[in-house]
This record gives sequence, structure tokens and C-alpha cells, in this order.
Amino acid sequence: MRFVLAAGNTATAAIDGISAAGEDPTLRSHTPAADAELVTFGRTIRSPAVPVSPTGCPTPALLTRAIRDLVGFNLLVVDAGLSEPTAAPTIDVGAAPGGDVREAEPVPAAADVVESARALGERLPDDELVLCESVPGGTTTALGLLRALGEPFGVSSSLPTNPVDRKSAVVGAGLAASGLAEGEAAGAPTIAFRRMGDPVHAALFGLARGGVEAGARLTLAGGTQMLAVAALLRHGGVDAPLTIATTPFVAEDPTVDVEAAADALGLDLVVTDPGFDGTDHPAMAPYVAGEAKEGVGFGGALAVAERSDVPMAAVRDRIAAIYEEVHDGP
Amino acid sequence: MRFVLAAGNTATAAIDGISAAGEDPTLRSHTPAADAELVTFGRTIRSPAVPVSPTGCPTPALLTRAIRDLVGFNLLVVDAGLSEPTAAPTIDVGAAPGGDVREAEPVPAAADVVESARALGERLPDDELVLCESVPGGTTTALGLLRALGEPFGVSSSLPTNPVDRKSAVVGAGLAASGLAEGEAAGAPTIAFRRMGDPVHAALFGLARGGVEAGARLTLAGGTQMLAVAALLRHGGVDAPLTIATTPFVAEDPTVDVEAAADALGLDLVVTDPGFDGTDHPAMAPYVAGEAKEGVGFGGALAVAERSDVPMAAVRDRIAAIYEEVHDGP
Repeated sequence: MRFVLAAGNTATAAIDGISAAGEDPTLRSHTPAADAELVTFGRTIRSPAVPVSPTGCPTPALLTRAIRDLVGFNLLVVDAGLSEPTAAPTIDVGAAPGGDVREAEPVPAAADVVESARALGERLPDDELVLCESVPGGTTTALGLLRALGEPFGVSSSLPTNPVDRKSAVVGAGLAASGLAEGEAAGAPTIAFRRMGDPVHAALFGLARGGVEAGARLTLAGGTQMLAVAALLRHGGVDAPLTIATTPFVAEDPTVDVEAAADALGLDLVVTDPGFDGTDHPAMAPYVAGEAKEGVGFGGALAVAERSDVPMAAVRDRIAAIYEEVHDGP
Repeated sequence: MRFVLAAGNTATAAIDGISAAGEDPTLRSHTPAADAELVTFGRTIRSPAVPVSPTGCPTPALLTRAIRDLVGFNLLVVDAGLSEPTAAPTIDVGAAPGGDVREAEPVPAAADVVESARALGERLPDDELVLCESVPGGTTTALGLLRALGEPFGVSSSLPTNPVDRKSAVVGAGLAASGLAEGEAAGAPTIAFRRMGDPVHAALFGLARGGVEAGARLTLAGGTQMLAVAALLRHGGVDAPLTIATTPFVAEDPTVDVEAAADALGLDLVVTDPGFDGTDHPAMAPYVAGEAKEGVGFGGALAVAERSDVPMAAVRDRIAAIYEEVHDGP
């Protein structure tokens, strides 16, 4: 089993009011690079800070790393368009940072990224791949992808109040700039990526497709962004079993119906509760309050912890410990 | 504990008759990229073949990977000037492939590579680093570095018959082109790297220096190339304890005296015997016959296996099994 983290940046993330993945817009661009370092090393190395939301909620990368400390899973980080330096070792799939989804073609190289990632996924030696992402603004491009395909599902948010109208307006502007009607990219994932997506979702799609072709079991670790990846796979003709593993913070988000979407797409849905209720710990309480919710494979890591018989109390203890380490460390 | 593999290419490797790290000159340039894939994944992914010597001796990367399968150590691959694509995730330290050591400045960016690697080594979270290399032609640049420093030690070879005269002639031409007398770079490692080295040794030097500064225990996993790294560290003023971990195939090489060199440089020398004597297995018998001898951290991996109480019989069994896997695999 191997976690594959696709990390990248887009100009979409700089649109006001759509992402909480970073303390401010300057630091936000470092979030995927820092997330990759955190899951790889348990600390930042070249990145300027541990990513937090504007209110101080720490990145889910820290939580995923805490579980990795307990379970010890393999990790491969894919450079799916990183704009800032990272010390995490990465593999290149020909991705550049994505443009603004309101442009005509935010991902001009989408077909090449998909093909390079597919070839990689097809040659990985693992019987199971757990795919995850770090891309600020990712739920907005996910919504763009879903609308391009004509899928009706909504997307969640890393903000406590989902800026649904803001995202819909951005996606509407993107469809207009791309010359696409809603549903016009149905059955054509690469067109959707090129005109309405980002390089991270394109890389995940390619990796999943290659993995399925090689016979690997696929878990999409995340929330509504992974629903978008699943929808793209179904539109691309992939009918293999797919699991989506997420957190209760997404599953219980009143602005989306993950269960209905998973049903419609024929996905096995796994929701694993880390038991954060009742805590006042600064790394956990914000999740209960609806911040961050998911990301960097946190839901998938929780599922792996559960099936490895790691008690959730141990997960919470390790999260508290790693939070201390990164705040008090050198 | 973490293995850090610095992998890179140089034009020096293309000089006739100095390297056995590849079946032919075309495939030889893929050797470091393929070695990185083998230790990372246990198979090649983007590389065209599992590297073998002209007589069919498989790369020591396969042997190191076999031990990794048994011991499960962390791995970080540094792109120290790779010229060919690899699917191994790598970290960038600003290295380009090295030039021909017979040029005036085969590594113009040496100072930047050293500094970037030093900063990385200083921030790695590990209490112990095991440094290793994959660079065809590396013993020739190691000899160049030793002569630039004025150190008298010889270097081993991946060929059964060490082309000592050929290497000495190349190094002599290099010193002349670089305008250096023997010993003129004593106390000045960066000058030695720039004028007589390669990016892999420069990266290893920087990583070691940073690791020592952060208080990590350092093992240099390899033969005479690692003696050169140790000499450079001593010339750079690093007086911390250093261990060199190698194979009996280097330690018993009659063309070099590793023990004397380790003594002179104040190194702890660890030689671990995998017990290949008497086998006729095609992945092991050539090592007894003096091919390859060492590389890609094989001696260090053996030392880690020994201190982890993994029996050498299990190491040999796993080597035989992985040899089958990469030859019969898809």
C-alpha cells in the first residue's frame, strides 16, 4: 500500500474568499510544498511555516503525518504543479502550476500530465494506492470539473462557511471563458481538465487510471475533490471498484451530500471518525467547528489507522504530540 | 535513521574504460536514475533496464533494495545531477550533470550545490544519516578530489581489473586543465569540487556537513568514494566522528588499503560480509569475483542488516528473490 500525494498550485487559489489553506495569500502558495514536507519528514524544511488557516487551524497534513508515525505507510509525492520550493522528494509528471479557472485554458498541458501520471500509476509496484491531494482552491476547480461534466454534486470547503455563491460565480465565469456549456465535457475528462481544472486533479485522474489498469485497489482519500476525481474516472470509462475515504467533517457537511454522490458514482464510502468531539486542543477542536475538514489524505489515513487496529485515542495523542513538536522545534 | 542517496551523472563516466556501471555507454547514463528507482520501488519504472555491468553483474542497487525489503529503512533520493528521467521522487539541490574532469571546471555550481545540500542536511529530522551514491565514473572523480587535496589514498573500481593507470592519466589531465598542482586544494573542498569533482560528491559533502552541524550520527556507506568524501570533510574542518561502512569486496581489494586510509582520516571502519562465497548465483557470484564491489549504499545496508539482527542467509535469499522479480516481472 502506498499513499500518493499530488501537490500543486493554481492561480485560482488567489481568488478572494475561496480558500482557507494558508494564513494569508502569500503564505498560501507555500501550503502544498509545506504539506508535502510535513507528511514526508514530520516537519517543514524549506517551507517558511506550518500551514494554518486564517484562524489558526493547522493543516490536515499534520494529522496525516501523525497517523503515518503510527502506521508507517509508504509515500510518493507527485509534483503536480508546485510553485514554491519543497524539500519533499517529488516525482515530475510534466505539470506546471495551474492558471485561473476563469481563463480559457487554465491547464494547457492537461493531456500530457494525465498521460505521464497514467504511465507512472501503471508501473507502481503496489497492490493498493491511496490517492490524496494538496491544492489550495481545489474545491473550486473540483466544482468546475463537475459542472463541465454535467454532474450535479456540490463541493465542500475548508472554510467554516462554504462560499457556495462565490465558487458558483467563479465556475460560471470559467465556463464562459472556456466556451463550455454545463455538461459539454461529459465523457471527455481531458477537455474538462484543460479548460476547467487544475494539474492536481489531472495527475490524480491519471494515477488512478494507471493504477486500475495495473490491477491495484484504489482509494481516493479526501472529500468532494475526490468525488470529482471519481466522476472524471467514470466519465473516462473506468468502471472498476473505487473507494472514497473521508472524514465525518465532510460527510456531515450540510452543504453537500457525499453519500448520495458516492451512490450515484458507484463508490464505496468509508467515513472514519477520529473522535475529536469534546476536545479543546488547538489542532483538533477547529475541525469539529468545521474548519479545514479534510485534505492531504486525512480521511484515508484515518481509514488505514482503523483497519490497522490503531486506537483513535492513540491517533489523537500523536496529533497532540506532533503539534507540540512542530511548534517548539528548531 | 535515513538513507540519503545522491544520484547523478558526469561526462567523466563516458571516458573509455573507467566504469562498469552499465551494460554499454548508452545505458550507463541511465544507471543512477535506475538505481534510484530500484532502491525506492524495487523495480524500474521510467528507466529502460536494470543496470548490469558489461558481463552481466547486476547493480548493487538491487542488493541494497533487498536489504531495504527486510529492514524497511527510510530513503531520500537527492538529484545530484541526473541526466536521465527517473520515477524515484527526488529533491533538488541545484545540481546539473557534471562535466568531464579533464575540463577546467567540471562542476561550476559546486559552491551552490554544497550550500543547498548543507541546508538540507541541517534540517533533516533524523538522528542518523547513512549517505550513499550512484554516479558512474565516481571512483575517477574521487581520485581527482583526493589528488587535488594532496591525499595519497588510492581508489577502487567497479571493474574486476582496476584501470589504475587510465584513471591516473585522466586525473593528471584534469589537474593540468584546472591549473591545479597536487595538493593545491588542500583545506579548500569547494575548489576541489569545482575543478576536479562531480556534483554527487559535492552533494554528499554538503549533506554530511549539515547533518553533523545538526548533531546527527553520520555513516558514509561506500568504499573509496566515501573515503574521498571523508577526506573532504576533514579538509573542511569537520572533526566529528564519522563511520565508513563498506563491503569486503572493497576492503579486500588489493589495489587500495581502505583500513590505512580510514585510520589516517580518523574514521570508524565497518566491513560487513554478506557471505557470498561459494554461491554461483548470478546476482552474487560476480561480487566475489571482484565485479561492482560496492555502491548505492550496499555496504551500509549490510551494516544496518547486521545490527538489526537480520541473518545474512535471509539477505542472500531476498537478493535471489528480488533478482527473479526484476527479471521476470512486467
